[in-house]
Amino acid sequence: MRAEIIAVGTELLLGQIVNTNAQYLSKGLAELGIDVYYQTVVGDNKDRLIEVIRLARSRADLLVFTGGLGPTMDDLTRDALAEYLGRDVELHEPTMNKIESLFAGRGMTFVESNRRQALLVEGATPLRNDTGLAVGNALSVDGTHYLLLPGPPREMKPMFDNDGTAWLKQLTGETLSLHSVMLKFAGIGESLLEETLIDLIREQNDPTIATYAKEGEVTVRVSTKARDSAEAQRKLEAALTEIRRRTESYLYAEEDVSIESKVVQLLTEQRRTVSLAESCTGGMVSQLITMIPGSADVFQGGVVSYSNLMKHRQLGVPNELLDGPDAPGAVSEETAAAMAEGVLKAADSDFALSVTGVAGPAASEGKPVGLVFVGLAQKGQPTRVDKLQLSGDREGIRLRAAKRSLYTLWQALTGRA
Amino acid sequence: MRAEIIAVGTELLLGQIVNTNAQYLSKGLAELGIDVYYQTVVGDNKDRLIEVIRLARSRADLLVFTGGLGPTMDDLTRDALAEYLGRDVELHEPTMNKIESLFAGRGMTFVESNRRQALLVEGATPLRNDTGLAVGNALSVDGTHYLLLPGPPREMKPMFDNDGTAWLKQLTGETLSLHSVMLKFAGIGESLLEETLIDLIREQNDPTIATYAKEGEVTVRVSTKARDSAEAQRKLEAALTEIRRRTESYLYAEEDVSIESKVVQLLTEQRRTVSLAESCTGGMVSQLITMIPGSADVFQGGVVSYSNLMKHRQLGVPNELLDGPDAPGAVSEETAAAMAEGVLKAADSDFALSVTGVAGPAASEGKPVGLVFVGLAQKGQPTRVDKLQLSGDREGIRLRAAKRSLYTLWQALTGRA
Repeated sequence: MRAEIIAVGTELLLGQIVNTNAQYLSKGLAELGIDVYYQTVVGDNKDRLIEVIRLARSRADLLVFTGGLGPTMDDLTRDALAEYLGRDVELHEPTMNKIESLFAGRGMTFVESNRRQALLVEGATPLRNDTGLAVGNALSVDGTHYLLLPGPPREMKPMFDNDGTAWLKQLTGETLSLHSVMLKFAGIGESLLEETLIDLIREQNDPTIATYAKEGEVTVRVSTKARDSAEAQRKLEAALTEIRRRTESYLYAEEDVSIESKVVQLLTEQRRTVSLAESCTGGMVSQLITMIPGSADVFQGGVVSYSNLMKHRQLGVPNELLDGPDAPGAVSEETAAAMAEGVLKAADSDFALSVTGVAGPAASEGKPVGLVFVGLAQKGQPTRVDKLQLSGDREGIRLRAAKRSLYTLWQALTGRA
Repeated sequence: MRAEIIAVGTELLLGQIVNTNAQYLSKGLAELGIDVYYQTVVGDNKDRLIEVIRLARSRADLLVFTGGLGPTMDDLTRDALAEYLGRDVELHEPTMNKIESLFAGRGMTFVESNRRQALLVEGATPLRNDTGLAVGNALSVDGTHYLLLPGPPREMKPMFDNDGTAWLKQLTGETLSLHSVMLKFAGIGESLLEETLIDLIREQNDPTIATYAKEGEVTVRVSTKARDSAEAQRKLEAALTEIRRRTESYLYAEEDVSIESKVVQLLTEQRRTVSLAESCTGGMVSQLITMIPGSADVFQGGVVSYSNLMKHRQLGVPNELLDGPDAPGAVSEETAAAMAEGVLKAADSDFALSVTGVAGPAASEGKPVGLVFVGLAQKGQPTRVDKLQLSGDREGIRLRAAKRSLYTLWQALTGRA
């Protein structure tokens, strides 16, 4: 089946908003095995919209519309399609009741134009809108299929994923749907991870294996088409087992969660606490951890020791380490260890992480941009320091250093270090 | 003039990327007074691309293409247009030289396909590519105008803004261009700012005045069309003067910079330093400041005192403030003051900011979500504490609290507090 996606809205043509709907639908249709040949954007103008429908019918057998289902006179998609097909529009009572009771419930006067959101092209199947008012439309006429979805993404997406996809599967006779497992990795770069899995990625057919990198995290998606999740699990198992075997030291979750939320979860389960001593990351690790609701129970706090005075006074780093011609300096294994041990003691926590390094843009203490030391101190255990050479710009180095320190803590929490 | 934007690329139809180019160009064309009636996306297929050109010619007089100018066999836009127009393609020598010397300079073997990036449709004006290799094309044939731009936004945007816009202005005879001044505000919400300026916004015609809010900052853009910047300045002056008069206490910059970069700039100019004591913001203020290159010279460091133990030990907040039935508690004016004074002393800085509050999702110490105290301590001056009631979710409250503390410091640095 060939599809054309038609987005209706003058605000798109004025460049006021980006047509993210087209991307979402293209991806969703591809997963259903439907090819998208064109995406079109047209304004809120009935004549031009009808012309677009005429053209799209000549080159596709499925027309997916977004936008133009709202209450105003500018919302013309339903009317244009009805006029093109020579059909009437009809009221969808359940939607009308929903709209009326919503107005009544909020003590608002019912505005007549809202009635428009309950209209269907004659003969269309209604599509439920769980996040808004306008009802969706699905109908097939003379071998062409029409799917009318609302414009706001928060209404469009659930309608497409639920009733829309169900209707399309019926059309295509497709009984399979896409099942994916997301594997999340830390402490390893995308290229090295890809190298580790390269034969699996090359030989892949079913399931498919793809790697993604963003925001300092690497994800592997393993996907297959299956009738249900039990069948999917059977089809995915061999690939998952092999990936787990090869990457065990870096695989921190089999769902789409960040390393910081995994770490907070493990700390909570183990009733243990952490504190931080940050230099080059400048509070980023702290910021990542405290973004997680509930982190207050496991995070004692931290010191952002940007100056040597702060390192000395707040963390007890000896001045001999920081100053003098032969001192190892602020960016060193010794200072990283002293920072972690200092905050462990001050915060009375079970773990303490430290990060000190050169984020750039310029070198510091004669040390190269990207040189970073990550320390981990624990009560009653020797302190560990990892020396890293990270790449990227200032923000990239800071983010990688922050994520790397969280990976070190994850190793400790899972008995890997 | 009526335009159609044609994005070429199968990756768009597969939903792998979002067509942000269409939005950028729609906006840019609107500013040039050119109406966009359609946006079309078509894959890397010559026959379909030629069909799209034929159709677009029937409904527009300017066709703006993005994508398909690269080196591979899938990059077909130039070839398709040449075939449609019955013209040859010709080599653009300066681009060819640029590509060859780039390869030579990097010691790489020249790959023949790269030659394709130097090709022009016969008779086209070349458009300079400052951020990539592929040359742009602009030509007019039989009353239809064709503008061919690269697909990657970082190449497309500067080419459109520079040579593309110049070519279009020549076409339309437009001698005016849009001049804008961005006014940046802190310490005031978008709705209150809009209310302050509502009569100016309502009566606006030329210049136009628009407010935007994102990431905890509010921006007002004042724009006019003018022949040159001197004329623009004359046309904008009255509106700017009136806005400045009404909003003087919140207007921290007349260019698009963040409050943290303004604060770092002022600290650098005044050779003064700051330190931080953060509770509910969890390191966010520190993270914002240290994102600015050069902040190391003015930022001494900070303490993220999430636990009361950290507040007491690292900042010297008296236990009587934190514990006991009649104590004001961690979220209080007294604690905010003690935190700021504690870190001022520890870091030996000129200024110290503190933030303590309830970010949510749940209330704390019987205090409501959104209650935040911001403290400012300075050497030899009384400490000031502001009590705020902020709205939003956890991340929104944290961000607003962080920006608000930076606003407080800006006030101090500019003699407003």
